[in-house]
Amino acid sequence: MTGIHQTGLPKLLACAHALADTSAQAILPYFRQQIAVDNKASGQDFDPVTAADQAAERSISDYLRKNHPAHGMVGEEFGTHQADAHLKWVIDPIDGTRAFIMGSPLWGTLIGLLAAEKPVLGIMNQPFTGERFWSDGAASFMTTPHISNAQRIITRPCTTLSAATLVTTHPDTFTTGDEQERFARVKSQARMTRYGGDCYGYCLLAAGFVDVIIETGLKPYDVVALIPIVETAGGRMTTWQGGSAANGGQIVATGDPKLHDVVLQLLAD
Amino acid sequence: MTGIHQTGLPKLLACAHALADTSAQAILPYFRQQIAVDNKASGQDFDPVTAADQAAERSISDYLRKNHPAHGMVGEEFGTHQADAHLKWVIDPIDGTRAFIMGSPLWGTLIGLLAAEKPVLGIMNQPFTGERFWSDGAASFMTTPHISNAQRIITRPCTTLSAATLVTTHPDTFTTGDEQERFARVKSQARMTRYGGDCYGYCLLAAGFVDVIIETGLKPYDVVALIPIVETAGGRMTTWQGGSAANGGQIVATGDPKLHDVVLQLLAD
Repeated sequence: MTGIHQTGLPKLLACAHALADTSAQAILPYFRQQIAVDNKASGQDFDPVTAADQAAERSISDYLRKNHPAHGMVGEEFGTHQADAHLKWVIDPIDGTRAFIMGSPLWGTLIGLLAAEKPVLGIMNQPFTGERFWSDGAASFMTTPHISNAQRIITRPCTTLSAATLVTTHPDTFTTGDEQERFARVKSQARMTRYGGDCYGYCLLAAGFVDVIIETGLKPYDVVALIPIVETAGGRMTTWQGGSAANGGQIVATGDPKLHDVVLQLLAD
Repeated sequence: MTGIHQTGLPKLLACAHALADTSAQAILPYFRQQIAVDNKASGQDFDPVTAADQAAERSISDYLRKNHPAHGMVGEEFGTHQADAHLKWVIDPIDGTRAFIMGSPLWGTLIGLLAAEKPVLGIMNQPFTGERFWSDGAASFMTTPHISNAQRIITRPCTTLSAATLVTTHPDTFTTGDEQERFARVKSQARMTRYGGDCYGYCLLAAGFVDVIIETGLKPYDVVALIPIVETAGGRMTTWQGGSAANGGQIVATGDPKLHDVVLQLLAD
């Protein structure tokens, strides 16, 4: 697997879990507190940065520099450290910032690992609900406060859109008429469509409760951790053009690989 | 308070908590299981009934018949029992069925109490996350797994829409062009709009993280439990015309009462 010894992955997965634990400690004190919200983007976009975001990324960065100084890191808040490293952690401390600031639990901490630029394992951690979804590179798992051991998760069969649950974070993210039209084409055929979710939606797809996710404008730190979780659960995740999802952009994920080409075709027409 | 002795309310609130506990036991085994989903509505609407819904309502009905045989009950699944009773429990075992079947935690069990047809107390229980929001008729409270005691919740100040977070369950619930236009008028002035939430959104409004909720097509069992939670937290909840929300229909809730008339005016114009 991309130059990692078979014995290396469990150690790296243990590191990923440690990063999830340390970031949870940094984030939880801020959740559902009335905190100051900066406005990261200039102009009209509303893209909040919270103190929690920065505290979490700092805690992850500190852990890596101390325990794995040779590893690189790509973070949402503080940019890239050691861009040329073979192993690079790709971090979004709070994916779903808008959910976070409105007190909803539909956000998560994304911890992905690239080996030679390929996603090899990933964690989505939701410290408020006590849920964790991850891939060890070969299979996907979930823990919740209601199940005592890690539970293997797999996507569900769904070969037609008329039976599919479609998720996207917000209809207004499709900013061009062209994107809106392509999304509407899939939506009109889906059984039901739900908005909201960010990273949470991909984990529900990996766990077999959502069938299709279509999004646009994503960054690498929004997707790198999620690609292994979706794929080792049996799903597919690509760009709208069918290419690698690892750089973000226009992304489509399906739980049933048979549905993927159907959706790609509708998005391309 | 509508013919209930002051000493009666704490006993009734204890009953409401017991109903939340018993329904949680009935529901949790079904959450995130692949279960059969009936289609309650004929025709195009997709309105699932789950085994969990029915098991929870039955557990609540059984508890009431055994412990409070004089009380009435209005349920989503099995209709009304003792419609003429002075005290009537209004129950939605799973508000947010679509969220439930896709594995999202943004659903809840609604337990409201009418005295002489007026809402006097209410609970929203989320057994998966371990959260409970309620009103004792005088104040509103929340418990979560992360706070050891019940915490008083109050709405936040927000006097202008340009600073407001607006929530509605799904944009497609506004089925007429007229409703869509009225909602769009408010949305265009709000700072941000989020979809999804059902009962969860009202509790986040009561806790001071959401400012405005606008919905339509609601039933009494969707709102009776939530009205006290919103109002004793400091918010207002009415129809779009400013009348009592207790019968459902077109509903608007605001955390800051000063914002309520602004929103009503925009919805009326």
